[in-house]
Amino acid sequence: MASASIQKMAMNPDLAKERRNASFHVENLTNYIYHGTERVKRKRYIQNIAQQEDCIKNSKPWAFRTRQEEYELSLNKANHILKRQKELSMTDEVDKFYFNEAMLPNENNPMGLHFGMVIPTIEKHGTPEQKEKFLPLAKGMKIIGTYVQTELGHGTFIRGLETTATFDQKTQEFVMNSPTLSSTKYWPGNLGKTVNYCVLMAQLYTQGKCHGPHMFLCPLRDLVTHQSLPGVELGDIGPKFGYRGNDNGFLRLNNFRIPHDHMLMRYSKVLKDGTYIKPENTKLSYGSMVMIRASIVGMTARALSQACVIAIRYSAVRRQTEVSPGGPEAQILDYQTQQYKLFPLLASAYAFTFAGQAVQASFLQISKEIEAGNLQQMPVLHALAAGLKAFSSWTCSAGVEVCRMSCGGHGYSLASGLPKIYTNITPSCTYEGENTVMMLQTARFLSKCAMKVQKGEKLPGLVSYLSTDLTKKSCMTADVTFDCLVKAYQHRAARLTKAAAAAIQRYMNDGQSPAEAFNMASTQLIWAAKAHCHQYVVNVFVNTVTKAKVDKNTGAVLTTLCKLYAVNGILENLGEFLQDQFFSCDQVDILTRKLMTLLAEVRPDAVALVDAFDFPDSVLESCLGRYDGNVYYALYQYAKSSPLNEQDVLDSFHKYIQPMREGQASSPAQARL
Amino acid sequence: MASASIQKMAMNPDLAKERRNASFHVENLTNYIYHGTERVKRKRYIQNIAQQEDCIKNSKPWAFRTRQEEYELSLNKANHILKRQKELSMTDEVDKFYFNEAMLPNENNPMGLHFGMVIPTIEKHGTPEQKEKFLPLAKGMKIIGTYVQTELGHGTFIRGLETTATFDQKTQEFVMNSPTLSSTKYWPGNLGKTVNYCVLMAQLYTQGKCHGPHMFLCPLRDLVTHQSLPGVELGDIGPKFGYRGNDNGFLRLNNFRIPHDHMLMRYSKVLKDGTYIKPENTKLSYGSMVMIRASIVGMTARALSQACVIAIRYSAVRRQTEVSPGGPEAQILDYQTQQYKLFPLLASAYAFTFAGQAVQASFLQISKEIEAGNLQQMPVLHALAAGLKAFSSWTCSAGVEVCRMSCGGHGYSLASGLPKIYTNITPSCTYEGENTVMMLQTARFLSKCAMKVQKGEKLPGLVSYLSTDLTKKSCMTADVTFDCLVKAYQHRAARLTKAAAAAIQRYMNDGQSPAEAFNMASTQLIWAAKAHCHQYVVNVFVNTVTKAKVDKNTGAVLTTLCKLYAVNGILENLGEFLQDQFFSCDQVDILTRKLMTLLAEVRPDAVALVDAFDFPDSVLESCLGRYDGNVYYALYQYAKSSPLNEQDVLDSFHKYIQPMREGQASSPAQARL
Repeated sequence: MASASIQKMAMNPDLAKERRNASFHVENLTNYIYHGTERVKRKRYIQNIAQQEDCIKNSKPWAFRTRQEEYELSLNKANHILKRQKELSMTDEVDKFYFNEAMLPNENNPMGLHFGMVIPTIEKHGTPEQKEKFLPLAKGMKIIGTYVQTELGHGTFIRGLETTATFDQKTQEFVMNSPTLSSTKYWPGNLGKTVNYCVLMAQLYTQGKCHGPHMFLCPLRDLVTHQSLPGVELGDIGPKFGYRGNDNGFLRLNNFRIPHDHMLMRYSKVLKDGTYIKPENTKLSYGSMVMIRASIVGMTARALSQACVIAIRYSAVRRQTEVSPGGPEAQILDYQTQQYKLFPLLASAYAFTFAGQAVQASFLQISKEIEAGNLQQMPVLHALAAGLKAFSSWTCSAGVEVCRMSCGGHGYSLASGLPKIYTNITPSCTYEGENTVMMLQTARFLSKCAMKVQKGEKLPGLVSYLSTDLTKKSCMTADVTFDCLVKAYQHRAARLTKAAAAAIQRYMNDGQSPAEAFNMASTQLIWAAKAHCHQYVVNVFVNTVTKAKVDKNTGAVLTTLCKLYAVNGILENLGEFLQDQFFSCDQVDILTRKLMTLLAEVRPDAVALVDAFDFPDSVLESCLGRYDGNVYYALYQYAKSSPLNEQDVLDSFHKYIQPMREGQASSPAQARL
Repeated sequence: MASASIQKMAMNPDLAKERRNASFHVENLTNYIYHGTERVKRKRYIQNIAQQEDCIKNSKPWAFRTRQEEYELSLNKANHILKRQKELSMTDEVDKFYFNEAMLPNENNPMGLHFGMVIPTIEKHGTPEQKEKFLPLAKGMKIIGTYVQTELGHGTFIRGLETTATFDQKTQEFVMNSPTLSSTKYWPGNLGKTVNYCVLMAQLYTQGKCHGPHMFLCPLRDLVTHQSLPGVELGDIGPKFGYRGNDNGFLRLNNFRIPHDHMLMRYSKVLKDGTYIKPENTKLSYGSMVMIRASIVGMTARALSQACVIAIRYSAVRRQTEVSPGGPEAQILDYQTQQYKLFPLLASAYAFTFAGQAVQASFLQISKEIEAGNLQQMPVLHALAAGLKAFSSWTCSAGVEVCRMSCGGHGYSLASGLPKIYTNITPSCTYEGENTVMMLQTARFLSKCAMKVQKGEKLPGLVSYLSTDLTKKSCMTADVTFDCLVKAYQHRAARLTKAAAAAIQRYMNDGQSPAEAFNMASTQLIWAAKAHCHQYVVNVFVNTVTKAKVDKNTGAVLTTLCKLYAVNGILENLGEFLQDQFFSCDQVDILTRKLMTLLAEVRPDAVALVDAFDFPDSVLESCLGRYDGNVYYALYQYAKSSPLNEQDVLDSFHKYIQPMREGQASSPAQARL
């Protein structure tokens, strides 16, 4: 079967050419992204180990696994990860991250919440006695837990939770109940089948009074047989858009009793006689929430980076439509429309990578201040992490879909790897705080800042730009300097913040309650919050590029990317920059032409810029994004291995197709016409 | 288990209240959308029949089916559809459409391409002899076919196809070959396992010359045994993002011979001696392409409508966050941010519904002219259908995802029904002409129009607005009249078209070739093409609303929706309206306030406006979008029926979880702590 024509090349010649012609050394940029040659070496070593694991090498491709197989495999992999980490004494969190990513690319580790949330929660919220009792059990995995908060009817608004924990003084137990249908716990990861314990959020009742949501350690399954305990009804919640390997679960509790020492009591306490003792400081628990949101920024950047690798490599390989009649078909990467789709996203992937690193660094620094008792910076960071989590997850999630569609029809096949990336990252728009609610938290903080500006008060560093003089017009010239770009973003955010705060004030002057006025201004508040996050990301990108210790060529390409990110962001949101005529018509023309120039400048380096992310093929799992560019060969192999092809003629032919034809007298009973 | 608390209500009280308080009669709007009470009655009758079919009532829910089950079920349903259509003498295309939609909601009919494309192609492109021979076989389903065009390396650019059909004069046969890997046919629906024939696009070679792509009837499988024929290698291409029930296929041909009469020869001919005869008119074949693209507009509107039904009903049922401290939680539909997400999409769903009807009507009218030999209007319609297909599929596809995310976490469950709608509609962005290529076709036409404007030539109806005086500023006042809205969209599209055409000219003056100049201006050309389509949709919406024969209240709510669509579209693309200061700052303020007012005006009618689409629950297949609002009840039932819950303790516990714990000396061997 014309088999000579179906073969793998060592390297697609177009990709080889792209790599030869790049203006900078890929390795230099990779080293910069990952903080040095040593770390890059280590990352590759770790990724390489993962690729050698049996459960990776010998498993069915992701696209062909059933949900059950995917669930089993994720447990199998979790098992291997723990074993190998121990064998290799892998204790560094960065090492663990890359090992986990390589073992479970765009998949969930079923032990992730146990080690990442449950154990830290016991460490943070347990008394010394509780830690001594539960931590060894949890670390030894006698107890395997998850974090159980959301209910069928209650998500981001925690005070609305309905699950109850009522202290029974006689037996020194808490009686746990799911009093309504909407109080059914729903969504917690790994709850359905995997865990035997959980950290449970429930309304605490003692001495007849409700004291709001508190954390309990709640057994769910027999520690030996794994059977669900009497009074506990739980299970998997069924298939989702993605997260196929995750047994996100539901849970109902019916007069289920847990011992007194199962309420986490480092801060709040219930004494033996039922007396409730309030925590001294309620803000302390925000820390881990902020950290998780900050880490999501980096995660979303990583997803978008992967999608860009796939789409840009494919666009260099794919040829379509002759440029001059009868001539060869062009690489689709040469079409400006394709560049306009992909290069701003490539720039965004870099922007969010750096923003993720910056916000984590801020978190670590401010955490130290907090540990030292200084809580001043907490609101700034809290507002930034909330907004940035929303801004990055929205942008990156939508960006992955643009990458997918930029691959034409082939993007729609699971073989492209893109649907897996998308369905795995899009939940970040709703988990850990629904994005709109997050943005409104940022906006609430900003509107308070705006009032301080009005009063002439000084604002802390990250929001000090809000007191910008709004009457000043843009300094933009044909040079398109970083300074004028940053000022433009600051102007926009400051103006929108002022306008939103003014709207609240106006509605209140009209007699609305503060809550109602806030709601009536909330669309404008979200515009302001997005603009604030956008200026932060631009600012970080500019600072990063300006200060980066890299060779000249690498610096130049980063500068181009950074300008592309900033210029494109202005043009995409042009109305917000033009409403007060901050830019003149001529300045807009300058920016529009600059955009086209920047696209052309990125073009020769596009493949090298995605190579620099240094994802192994095994993490991308994409026929389109392979390093060697054997796209069509891979798609053909993918098709041939489809499970539907195990038989040439399926039983369904006899069962359903034949009967449709019966009674058709016109049919000759012959094999061919 | 607290079972009293888990029950189904007759009707969720919030939804009941919404329906009581609507300002108009839902039934009146439904009748308007579907062209009269009789048609609505008929539609419901048809949908009701579908709901009674065994293969609908007794089948596993979509979310729980494996790919194999989904494929089999789609064949089973296709079987039932044919049978029932015959029994009920269902011949009207509208009836068939609703029956098909109800039987295969957001799924593919495996006989759809056979009846919808293959038979019409034989009818249109076959000679009288070919029609006589093949049509009875196709109608009797002895031959079941599909349309095979795209190849691994070739999609929208048909001239690039590589599959060859070489006429062998000696045997009077065509020899079919897939000469390269990239020539492998890839993607055709139902090709993998279902069909035994196809209409194949291949490069025709005769007398040593290539005559470009032509259509062949190509046998693939034995008509009796269904086994693939020697020389034919074909199969399923593996799982995709959606289209689970579709065996999209691949095909390679190796010196596969088909008889002379298997080339469709109504227009082009190959004589027995190998002489090639050209068709008289090459434009004739565009008709069906235009029709299919026009019909996609309506399809995408229907998908967005369904998503809006689900998201808006759920937003009326869902409550979150107390408005005043200690008060009840609000319906999330009362939050302006939620209204801002959903109501413009609701307005878009109506806009594209009407645009779809309008473009189909234009098609039918212009088709008549074409049949009468008048081809003048063809380019206008061709450009409109291409652009509108892209504009509507992009907007509606992205809109479905916004609806999904507006449902918070629950939108991510397949129980929401939204992932099914999304994955079924998003391919419309790439099939039947990749969207960017489509937009560029529209843009190319527009840039020609712009040149005519420059020369002072008069343009036909749909593009006559391009000669608008661009120096005029907007007439917008606080009334926000339809006239000023339409003029704004015309101004924007005319300005962008002029700018894009000028850019091409500028690049050519700089010495670029026409092709290169077009490429360098292509981003701007796409902006222009989108603006053109947008003004068409606004125009149709305004005309529809203005002329609609409906009662006053229905007219009022349609007017509000139409204004919302137009005002929101301006604010979303504000930069394009502001770049030449067409609007003043005050006018933008007017529009911003108007937007907020319109959201508040739609609010009390939102549920009634989605009810008016009249989708039965069985078509929505959504726990969140149920007519009765029993959202949490349905989600709980969905979870309980998840296949992973068939056993309490899965085998994987013993296989993978237990071993992780082994060797942990700290674990007591007890069931509970």
